[in-house]
Amino acid sequence: MRVAFQGEAGAFSEEAVEAFFENAEPVGCASFEDVFAALENEDADRAAIPIENSLHGSVHANYDLLRTREARITGEHWMRIRHYLMARPGASLDEMRRVRSHPQALGQCRAFLRERMPQAEVIPAHDTAGAARKVADSEGDNRTAAIASRRAADEYGLAVLAEDIESNPENYTRFLALARPGDAPSDEAQDEDRPCKTSLVFALNENVPGALFKSLAVFALRELDLFKIESRPLIGTPGEYVFYLDVEGAAASEPVRRALGHLREITSEARVLGSYPVD
Amino acid sequence: MRVAFQGEAGAFSEEAVEAFFENAEPVGCASFEDVFAALENEDADRAAIPIENSLHGSVHANYDLLRTREARITGEHWMRIRHYLMARPGASLDEMRRVRSHPQALGQCRAFLRERMPQAEVIPAHDTAGAARKVADSEGDNRTAAIASRRAADEYGLAVLAEDIESNPENYTRFLALARPGDAPSDEAQDEDRPCKTSLVFALNENVPGALFKSLAVFALRELDLFKIESRPLIGTPGEYVFYLDVEGAAASEPVRRALGHLREITSEARVLGSYPVD
Repeated sequence: MRVAFQGEAGAFSEEAVEAFFENAEPVGCASFEDVFAALENEDADRAAIPIENSLHGSVHANYDLLRTREARITGEHWMRIRHYLMARPGASLDEMRRVRSHPQALGQCRAFLRERMPQAEVIPAHDTAGAARKVADSEGDNRTAAIASRRAADEYGLAVLAEDIESNPENYTRFLALARPGDAPSDEAQDEDRPCKTSLVFALNENVPGALFKSLAVFALRELDLFKIESRPLIGTPGEYVFYLDVEGAAASEPVRRALGHLREITSEARVLGSYPVD
Repeated sequence: MRVAFQGEAGAFSEEAVEAFFENAEPVGCASFEDVFAALENEDADRAAIPIENSLHGSVHANYDLLRTREARITGEHWMRIRHYLMARPGASLDEMRRVRSHPQALGQCRAFLRERMPQAEVIPAHDTAGAARKVADSEGDNRTAAIASRRAADEYGLAVLAEDIESNPENYTRFLALARPGDAPSDEAQDEDRPCKTSLVFALNENVPGALFKSLAVFALRELDLFKIESRPLIGTPGEYVFYLDVEGAAASEPVRRALGHLREITSEARVLGSYPVD
């Protein structure tokens, strides 16, 4: 099973690939667009993408791709983002004079860097895994460290000097597993014993009074709980909003099916992105 | 008027400072926490922070600070994020062999870089303004460009080689102006002729059946439109959700006042973050 992800070996997204699929062959892609293209072109059988982070919010770019391209959500996985300080084997924390990582990771580890490595120069990198690779490639340099995932340390043969160095431990990213629509399990195939959720996207026009409230009523009136709701203004078309919504239940279940029919009566566009077990 | 922002001279946030305040003295801070601290310690009189981006979602970290620290929203501003390619005066696009910027900006300009500068090495930077400063500091180097704001080009005396080089023109960031609660205009002082919105944050427990729907009903029943709604799971306390909501109307207006009273009957925590004119 070839599984597309954005990034290179050792990226957090690659870890998500393994969390979703056993014996997967991860296929690194340069961008999220390329991940969707790999799925469509059958260069990959499945894909894994980040959709929201507990500190940095929803990845709207991926919601846009889910809305406009052909892919179906088949699963979700919440992953704790843990940062590790790593260097070439034999190096010690006190020797470090430089530390490489993505600016966001450097920012999340600011307190650690200030307290434990005040002498080190921080050097930005395109991504955490690339920073680890670069440190591994610098033979003879025992004074440069990288901040990346445990997986990146393993991938590039680096020694971990410090674990969980992020200031805020409540750093989680939710990943989605994707398949081509023809390869996703049918809505009817959902295991009724496992709690499921269904992800939807729909558009509302603010000129319809109370449209949002009515669209939520279709679920509330059927006692279906919502796991997520998010509005987003459609830039370029003032007054148009897109809503992302995760509702409890499988898309094929009676109450969700009826709620979706009701939703289509009052929205200009309502698309089921997928129905899958709750993580 | 000293106005705190996160970043250094030439940052997009600094541009927001000027959009909000005339004759402001911008005060650069290393982190968002430092921005809130500068306001609390009276090192700054006002602050400007990004709160959501049309491609990258809400800045949850700033919502957390709004929820837990003492600051009041006094205004909002949607700013188009335009990327410029710049270099030392006299350099030309064809000569460029390196281009520096924040990884996110480099990613947003990927198509331009591939088509117009395929020969250039892309070098990550902590932030776009810092990349521009570094190019400006490299005397005699006419082969390195930076991607940053027009403002950064002006700040560091660089020549613009190409404008609006981002692939997706629908890249907007919404900024908020902040004041200490005692310095913000009172709710009653809102100009009744200007459309206002009120930003709220509240927590719900999923064990209260239909709690979200009931909390939205307090606005819908009073025909108050919502500009934004976003749920966010509270990591660490499963089943607890925080909601961000922007509702039409000033906090002191009769319908909003009544809706807020009603909301407090059914939520565990409901906090008004500010009431301000719609941008």
